[in-house]
Amino acid sequence: MKMNIKKKYLDLVEKLEEISHLSGVMSTLGWDQEVVMPSGASEARAKQMAALAGVIHERMTDPQLGDCLATLKETDSFAFSAFELCNIREAKRNYDLETKIPKKLAMEMVALSSRAHPIWVSARKGNKFSDFSPVLNHFLELKKEWAQYAFPDLNPYDANIENFERGTGMAEITPIFEKLKAELIPFIEIIQNNPYQPDASFLQGQFPIAKQEALGRQISTDMGFQFDQGRMDVSVHPFCGGSHPTDVRITTRYKESNFIESLYAVIHETGHGLYEQGRMVESRDLPVSESLTMGIHESQSLFWERMIAQSNFFCAHYFETIRATFPDNLQGATVDTLYQAINICQPGFIRVEADELTYPLHIILRYEIEKGLFDGSMAVDDLPEIWNGMMMKYLGIKPPSDALGVLQDSHWSGGAFGYFPSYTLGAMYACQFYKTMVNELPNTEKNIEAGNFFPAKNWLNEKIHSQGRLYTPQELVQKVTGEPLNPDHFIAYLKKKYTAIYHLD
Amino acid sequence: MKMNIKKKYLDLVEKLEEISHLSGVMSTLGWDQEVVMPSGASEARAKQMAALAGVIHERMTDPQLGDCLATLKETDSFAFSAFELCNIREAKRNYDLETKIPKKLAMEMVALSSRAHPIWVSARKGNKFSDFSPVLNHFLELKKEWAQYAFPDLNPYDANIENFERGTGMAEITPIFEKLKAELIPFIEIIQNNPYQPDASFLQGQFPIAKQEALGRQISTDMGFQFDQGRMDVSVHPFCGGSHPTDVRITTRYKESNFIESLYAVIHETGHGLYEQGRMVESRDLPVSESLTMGIHESQSLFWERMIAQSNFFCAHYFETIRATFPDNLQGATVDTLYQAINICQPGFIRVEADELTYPLHIILRYEIEKGLFDGSMAVDDLPEIWNGMMMKYLGIKPPSDALGVLQDSHWSGGAFGYFPSYTLGAMYACQFYKTMVNELPNTEKNIEAGNFFPAKNWLNEKIHSQGRLYTPQELVQKVTGEPLNPDHFIAYLKKKYTAIYHLD
Repeated sequence: MKMNIKKKYLDLVEKLEEISHLSGVMSTLGWDQEVVMPSGASEARAKQMAALAGVIHERMTDPQLGDCLATLKETDSFAFSAFELCNIREAKRNYDLETKIPKKLAMEMVALSSRAHPIWVSARKGNKFSDFSPVLNHFLELKKEWAQYAFPDLNPYDANIENFERGTGMAEITPIFEKLKAELIPFIEIIQNNPYQPDASFLQGQFPIAKQEALGRQISTDMGFQFDQGRMDVSVHPFCGGSHPTDVRITTRYKESNFIESLYAVIHETGHGLYEQGRMVESRDLPVSESLTMGIHESQSLFWERMIAQSNFFCAHYFETIRATFPDNLQGATVDTLYQAINICQPGFIRVEADELTYPLHIILRYEIEKGLFDGSMAVDDLPEIWNGMMMKYLGIKPPSDALGVLQDSHWSGGAFGYFPSYTLGAMYACQFYKTMVNELPNTEKNIEAGNFFPAKNWLNEKIHSQGRLYTPQELVQKVTGEPLNPDHFIAYLKKKYTAIYHLD
Repeated sequence: MKMNIKKKYLDLVEKLEEISHLSGVMSTLGWDQEVVMPSGASEARAKQMAALAGVIHERMTDPQLGDCLATLKETDSFAFSAFELCNIREAKRNYDLETKIPKKLAMEMVALSSRAHPIWVSARKGNKFSDFSPVLNHFLELKKEWAQYAFPDLNPYDANIENFERGTGMAEITPIFEKLKAELIPFIEIIQNNPYQPDASFLQGQFPIAKQEALGRQISTDMGFQFDQGRMDVSVHPFCGGSHPTDVRITTRYKESNFIESLYAVIHETGHGLYEQGRMVESRDLPVSESLTMGIHESQSLFWERMIAQSNFFCAHYFETIRATFPDNLQGATVDTLYQAINICQPGFIRVEADELTYPLHIILRYEIEKGLFDGSMAVDDLPEIWNGMMMKYLGIKPPSDALGVLQDSHWSGGAFGYFPSYTLGAMYACQFYKTMVNELPNTEKNIEAGNFFPAKNWLNEKIHSQGRLYTPQELVQKVTGEPLNPDHFIAYLKKKYTAIYHLD
């Protein structure tokens, strides 16, 4: 009997590793498409990716995998280690998710996704929401239907959030977001009306791209990114991809007129990259080693981007390097003016350009809209008006067009409802992790100022990256920080930081 | 009945297209590995490629594919178009080749191939043939066994040649190679002893890589390579890869001290690339559109490299461009000295560095050795001595080491016996095609001198690239040139060209 179970488990491992290898291939295709593929190859590439997706789906829904999992799930859990139990649990979750969705619905979602993307692109370009609203409505219906198959015990919107942020739903998010709103909206207003405003004009100018690239590469290396197990390239939208923890590929984009945007994209993606490169050394082709959730992944990019690289300690360390790189532009700057300039709070229309303080409100707005769409209290056709009204209420500005408003993000054109909250959950996780780290490693700030990032990297490697999926996000946060996710840390951090920057006290 | 057959054919098409898409994915992985993959990812990549190879093998040996092919092969051929018949014929050939080899043997060959490559690398590095000879012996045994399963009606060495150059075997190759030997060996000796020798010293110097790259890209573009459906990058060994006719990827390598090597690698690989980009517009995911054989592929690269780019017309067109690119080095050069310098005949040890005239003898030497190994008249252990003796006899030089002799090529470490003849078959095809083109398009030389390569490209597109696998290589050569492969054209071309260069008349 025991031998038999061991063999079943090894069968499972073999099947899961094959799926992992093929998924790595798929990621390579995705990177290739965004970074190096000739434009004329897009049709052929779509067919190649569809063929491979078909194979992966076939493997993921293999009835033999199902039988194997059924036997293992029935087995006394004491027969397995925590690693093995995690692989069985994760494999079962994935198998259920793949097999519970009727093929017709799955194909409808894929088809709508390819159809909706160009419609969204052209609606945004033409600034015409009504061109996009029919597909948005259609996707909403499909995703409601999907939710009933995927997580029948959950409210449909919770099911969509569960897809990205397991164990977290409206019951957890709504009170947290209410608190953020109550604290941040008036605080941003105070900042807006404050007589003292930092100056960022010296960050405008001409910054040769080759110098930007060298600087980004240096800082990424300093952070601990291993370029023998990764790459850095250029793409339209920065991302972190790659096929394996030994093949992690980050990208950025360059504007000659602005080096901060590119540099902080490199730092952000390096944060994601360090998570992937830091995965447990064993079992790298099994679910137990995979990154936990979207929110935890985002916590790693924001840990480095916001908590470390937007700190005055980081500015102090790199100030001379940056000034030497761009001497014409930064000759009159100081560590403090640089620190202030990269942290300016300025309500704007575009989420991806938002600062640390206004960003959560962009997310909350989207969350409340998605919630309203799923519970029927909002209608798709009313979204432009709703959007603009909420922008006024939360940030005091009204988008002049839908392109700069409700049509700005690609997420909904791919049916990715329930994804947005992860960004702000990630920011709060990052803040809470950082606070814990500073307590455990009291030299953290000195180390950052000295450019010694290894203690921070090693701490994250040990506490988070190498933990894979052994714990739920809730368990992990409790285990690492000693308490559940607590937005008070985030609020206190933002208030303290911005009170100082804006001389509010 | 007819409806049923049509449906069977459509089933076949669907299966073949899936195999084509997945093979395109495999090619992308291969390119990625050679060009951009971080070094630390090699182990993960090997597993990914093995997983995908497993899937492709599964699809290629799918019993349903076999049933489908059996039904279609039994069908009256009048039911199908020439395109359809070609797809059925090619699919049957591939299916048979995949299924006739016992799994144990196929796995042994794959395993030996991975094991043999590093052994060859280290034997070459250590200059010790005896380290490599056991695996070479082993591969020889496996390839003899393979031959009996793959092409039981053929002599084992013929079976290995058939794998690369269908329809051609020792019966065709030996008399041609004997003729080449009889003509070229004494001719090269005359050239060697000739008092007049061209000067190529001005091709040594410092040639900035960025300028080399720009020049290569310009000439590749002039030749008609479409960069919206292809790329040019750097790799250790130049190659032409990519995943599809709309995604053709050529590579070169740069030496600061020598621009000719890199430039002619670009031209050579562009020749391969034009074949791929020029494949028939329909059926691009089906066997009918695929390139015909190794020899025909090589004829396309050599057509551009040797017949066009090593001509004085090509030198005349690009002379001013090249001189303007590297003014320090070429200030004293003329069109004629450039033409002579890039065509110098100089017996050397290394095949890949050989000139047009000595290259065939490197091939003939390898062909005769492979023949001897397969028919038992030569023993692996005696190869260093045999090699060196033949080098003396054919080229009048003796390699000072096995690294510069019998260990120089990677082919045998991968079990690729029967591959070498394709290089010289390609050179002869190229010459014969070129002669026909000049007859059909009398302005060819004027066009080359004017930098107008479109007539040549279009001629190749129409006569060769777009013909796919509709004809055998023998039929194609007959159809295009009006006669079978005839080495006399090649010999006459070489004699005329080199008689002029060396002022022999």
